[in-house]
Amino acid sequence: MNVARYFDHNATAPVLLSIQDEVAEFIKNEWANPSATYLKGREEKIILQDSRKALADWLKIDPLEWIFTSGASESNALVFYTLDHQSQDSEFIRSHGLRKKIITSSIEHPSVIENAKFLSQKKGYQWVQIPISKEGNIDYEYLENQIDNSTLLVSFMAASNETGLVFDIQKIAKMAKNQGAYFHTDATQALGKIDLNLEDVDYASFSAHKVNAFKGIGGLVVKNKCPLLPLIKGGGQERFRRAGTENIMGVWSFKKAAEFYQSGQKTLEFQNIKKMRDDFELKILESLGGVQVTHQSSLRLPNTTHLFFDDIQTQSLLINLDLKGYAVSVGSACSSGALRPSQTLLGMGYSARQALQGLRVSFGLGNKSSEIDQFILEIKNSVAKTRSISKPPSVLFAEEVKV
Amino acid sequence: MNVARYFDHNATAPVLLSIQDEVAEFIKNEWANPSATYLKGREEKIILQDSRKALADWLKIDPLEWIFTSGASESNALVFYTLDHQSQDSEFIRSHGLRKKIITSSIEHPSVIENAKFLSQKKGYQWVQIPISKEGNIDYEYLENQIDNSTLLVSFMAASNETGLVFDIQKIAKMAKNQGAYFHTDATQALGKIDLNLEDVDYASFSAHKVNAFKGIGGLVVKNKCPLLPLIKGGGQERFRRAGTENIMGVWSFKKAAEFYQSGQKTLEFQNIKKMRDDFELKILESLGGVQVTHQSSLRLPNTTHLFFDDIQTQSLLINLDLKGYAVSVGSACSSGALRPSQTLLGMGYSARQALQGLRVSFGLGNKSSEIDQFILEIKNSVAKTRSISKPPSVLFAEEVKV
Repeated sequence: MNVARYFDHNATAPVLLSIQDEVAEFIKNEWANPSATYLKGREEKIILQDSRKALADWLKIDPLEWIFTSGASESNALVFYTLDHQSQDSEFIRSHGLRKKIITSSIEHPSVIENAKFLSQKKGYQWVQIPISKEGNIDYEYLENQIDNSTLLVSFMAASNETGLVFDIQKIAKMAKNQGAYFHTDATQALGKIDLNLEDVDYASFSAHKVNAFKGIGGLVVKNKCPLLPLIKGGGQERFRRAGTENIMGVWSFKKAAEFYQSGQKTLEFQNIKKMRDDFELKILESLGGVQVTHQSSLRLPNTTHLFFDDIQTQSLLINLDLKGYAVSVGSACSSGALRPSQTLLGMGYSARQALQGLRVSFGLGNKSSEIDQFILEIKNSVAKTRSISKPPSVLFAEEVKV
Repeated sequence: MNVARYFDHNATAPVLLSIQDEVAEFIKNEWANPSATYLKGREEKIILQDSRKALADWLKIDPLEWIFTSGASESNALVFYTLDHQSQDSEFIRSHGLRKKIITSSIEHPSVIENAKFLSQKKGYQWVQIPISKEGNIDYEYLENQIDNSTLLVSFMAASNETGLVFDIQKIAKMAKNQGAYFHTDATQALGKIDLNLEDVDYASFSAHKVNAFKGIGGLVVKNKCPLLPLIKGGGQERFRRAGTENIMGVWSFKKAAEFYQSGQKTLEFQNIKKMRDDFELKILESLGGVQVTHQSSLRLPNTTHLFFDDIQTQSLLINLDLKGYAVSVGSACSSGALRPSQTLLGMGYSARQALQGLRVSFGLGNKSSEIDQFILEIKNSVAKTRSISKPPSVLFAEEVKV
């Protein structure tokens, strides 16, 4: 596909050119098992250690606080699994009390939501979801009142995959700390896009493919003082915190991304990306009526824009744009061609009908300023075309895949 | 490294040349998210479906019975996690009775052992390990008597990673079935080396990197009638059985391996590999005194040989061979340069001292018959050198990584 017409970088980001260039040579040489004791195995171990250090430098943590996983969904599962067991530990109950309350935002990713739901439905936890307003605000006072000495975990994403809304995770982390609760952040979308301060954060989840490295590799930050019960048990990899032969190629790709994202080149590229996003918003608001930018006045990721179009079916808009070679996201999930409204938007109080009128455009490496005018023209034409069709959006509550 | 001198294919197998040749082009084109609804996303979805079908064809299962995971350790964890929850399900208890007994062989991989240990130590399960004799025999009558109507799960590897010993999993699966217990096999080492019949098997675990594909990708066979509770919860990937953006490149590499292993080329290569292994054993027994082949008269994987050398420290032997560029495995795990005896060998009744005198040599793609004589000569020299040192093996019960 033409990467310049790909505007769905929050779903996944194209692999860095330097990784593309070096991958064949890498896999030709680096396929031995890092746990093996012979020279080649020891060399793989060094790649693993170097990569862990690169990630730790990026996040300003101790390298031992980084665990490689298969991605953020696994990292999120690992936190909930660990803390469920921790809450049952007699020593923990003695020192921290019985803690069976979990607090999340109302707009978390399904890989957080489904764990919270599981614990509340099957393990007797109370799960409180903190509403986020249409304007992107949290009632911090309400949140602080909800966090009490029965709270085990507060889990808030660092930034929304859908609208780009950025949360003040340090502030929330401190609130959790004050009540002896653990704080976890799914920082998948924030990594590389904003500065992350993990100082008061206990756990943080990441996926490499959102920062232009490979799919199937990710990580969990687990601070040295925090418990960790392996979800994948077995060998001693990752200091007995995550078993399984290390995905050394994936690990290497994540290291390459860490290096790129800490370089001046990234800074330049992302200055341009932010400018592109801002120009895009300005121009689309100028050239089209009945369109609003979600959370425009809130702190947002620099690459993400979420739009509402009056009187359209976003699904039709997507199809039109797809036919022109543009990749954007409805910010919703699709099953059998029918749409389910975005849980994120429902979580902000939008109706199902409104939620089906949203469009996510997420910029990234490979996008070109010179393409934006044409892109806007295509959106304008598609919106006009779609608005001429009067049929209301079909709402089907099929199951969803969020990306 | 020189692949011809790599004799540790059971730890991990070098990546197929066809994958090496095509990986750069693949990742250049195929990086979109398979859950995306635009054309490129749909193309990724087709790669995913084709790959699932290739694996299903290989294993003679329904494609819906295959779940992609990050590897066999995750697959094993998924089975134990699922069945622990299943055993607590009131409907299941009503129809199957209270089942809190787990049966495994005594020589399972740590990623099975640690799950069984966890359930027995933390969840009130009875865990019975069936001993395997030094000769590689199981007392099937004893096993059958152990499986009763309180048995939840019987888990037996299809073949040993260490000695290559092959188990009659169909026979054991039928025993489990007769008592209404589930049967799981960790078939990681068997895949591609022997014909697998999964007819009566409920769950089977696999890793792609053992069949010359990438690390970080694997699978679980879960038969259509069997329960599955996602360990990694969230999105609807893998039909809600394993969340997380699909590792499409890993999936593709596994498909390539499935195709290779079903081709005539594989048959030819593996005929040669078996001949190499048999020649190696014959020659080493001829040329060296005080050496025995483990399980030589049992059904074994065609590529694996496990040897005991009298009066040596295998660790020294490994170091000598490593210096000559040969990669072999002690069949044990190493921590801080000191060895812990192989749990597999201890599980067969060998003493710690004996277990430290074992050596695993596992052949595979890239090995050449023409190299075998030189390899044997190096082993011979190393054994002679090592035997001249009288120091007994140092036994340190450090934690282990099994590969």
